Amino acid sequence: MMSRWFLLVALACSLVGAQNPADVILRQLISRVEQLERESENTASSQVAFTVALLEENSWTSVGPFDADQTLVYKKVLTNVGNAYDTETGVFTAPVKGLYYFRITGIVGRTGKLNAGLKKNGEDIFEIYHKAGTQASASNGAAVELEQGDKVYVQLMQGNTIVDQSRLSTFTGFLVFPMESP
Amino acid sequence: MMSRWFLLVALACSLVGAQNPADVILRQLISRVEQLERESENTASSQVAFTVALLEENSWTSVGPFDADQTLVYKKVLTNVGNAYDTETGVFTAPVKGLYYFRITGIVGRTGKLNAGLKKNGEDIFEIYHKAGTQASASNGAAVELEQGDKVYVQLMQGNTIVDQSRLSTFTGFLVFPMESP
Amino acid sequence: MMSRWFLLVALACSLVGAQNPADVILRQLISRVEQLERESENTASSQVAFTVALLEENSWTSVGPFDADQTLVYKKVLTNVGNAYDTETGVFTAPVKGLYYFRITGIVGRTGKLNAGLKKNGEDIFEIYHKAGTQASASNGAAVELEQGDKVYVQLMQGNTIVDQSRLSTFTGFLVFPMESP
Repeated sequence: MMSRWFLLVALACSLVGAQNPADVILRQLISRVEQLERESENTASSQVAFTVALLEENSWTSVGPFDADQTLVYKKVLTNVGNAYDTETGVFTAPVKGLYYFRITGIVGRTGKLNAGLKKNGEDIFEIYHKAGTQASASNGAAVELEQGDKVYVQLMQGNTIVDQSRLSTFTGFLVFPMESP
Repeated sequence: MMSRWFLLVALACSLVGAQNPADVILRQLISRVEQLERESENTASSQVAFTVALLEENSWTSVGPFDADQTLVYKKVLTNVGNAYDTETGVFTAPVKGLYYFRITGIVGRTGKLNAGLKKNGEDIFEIYHKAGTQASASNGAAVELEQGDKVYVQLMQGNTIVDQSRLSTFTGFLVFPMESP
Repeated sequence: MMSRWFLLVALACSLVGAQNPADVILRQLISRVEQLERESENTASSQVAFTVALLEENSWTSVGPFDADQTLVYKKVLTNVGNAYDTETGVFTAPVKGLYYFRITGIVGRTGKLNAGLKKNGEDIFEIYHKAGTQASASNGAAVELEQGDKVYVQLMQGNTIVDQSRLSTFTGFLVFPMESP
């Protein structure tokens, strides 16, 4: 009975071109709620964070020197939410456009010379540097804007060495906030 | 007059088992808005961050060495949003499941040997290391997944020393994003 | 036809002081959606992050010593989302009340003595320290609560030196979460 009445009114309205004001408001409200739901889903899916250490060995192990700059493949995974860090290549690939934070710490290897850098698609971001002997470390970090698909990794510069023992020389990154594409 | 008419229609509808389509839509919309409000409250209540320095003294003060690994109780509180860091025990207890970022810096103490580590419920996360003399420091950091109630703290390894002067040797942590329980 | 009927009912309702229950619910729902939209806009506008390096030169360049504590004006901008870091003054001004994370790394300059500190409106937050010779670095970081308009910057202490080569000595900050004013 109700629905027949409703249909009759709807029919009458469509005939005279009028709209029930409450219906218009309701329709607008639904699209606003849908927009909020999309934003909420975006935020929830933007969970990206990793921390890896250079080596799985628990013994003190020196890596390098190499004849050319060498991408470091951090092998021990502590955290990899979103699986954006690839343990086969050492490369982090941004799953969404956004502002990310990265940091690295390196323990100086047996030559007493450590110079390594964070790279984004081959471009220099920051470097760590210690050439004052062994038994010491260097750290650096940066907030970096990335497009979806940008690649970030660490290179050990030619002729340098780095040490790990499963938790000393680390590489960390996480998404601080997603950014909308223009 | 209006409410009597409304009651009559409602009564008629309930008798014939029909529902006003607009009412159904409205009810669904209310529950979607409620869900969004819950998510928004979760985000707002997920404000957790602390930074503490080891000592309140402004003078250069060396701590250790100890006969066993020793949990460091950082005494000077710079920031403690959410009060999850306990100045009596040195322990941070995760108030919500989530992805946290932690970092520490330590200045080498009078023995010239500093080795300290971040622990989660007794498990190794990362370490800082400097055994090349005094007047220097070491830092490290990591993104760590925590369950609600997980405990994170810093241990100075047996035989090592660390210095502070109220703002040199620090321990920082903050929630990057909450994670839903399965 | 419809709108005339609607106006008549509305008039009748206002005369007898009654309200359509669905209208009341709809009005409440609209204000709840508006509140969620405001929160979402706040989150979106709270995108603040910067990383700067001390010098634009690619050559190894030592800065200092100075006769007094000196605010460092980091010249090379890597990231400045929200433009809250001022390259003319070296000062970051908080655009919103919130919890921010800051970190610095400094390479020791030609005198072999580096002591620099993060300041908030003139107040000490943390310091980096290395007085054990050149070719080394120091880092520190902290989570800091800021009011809108608070100023954060790095000072090189009197008599100390710091080196850069466009990506070694860095200053980074980002908003972790906005906080509501009371």
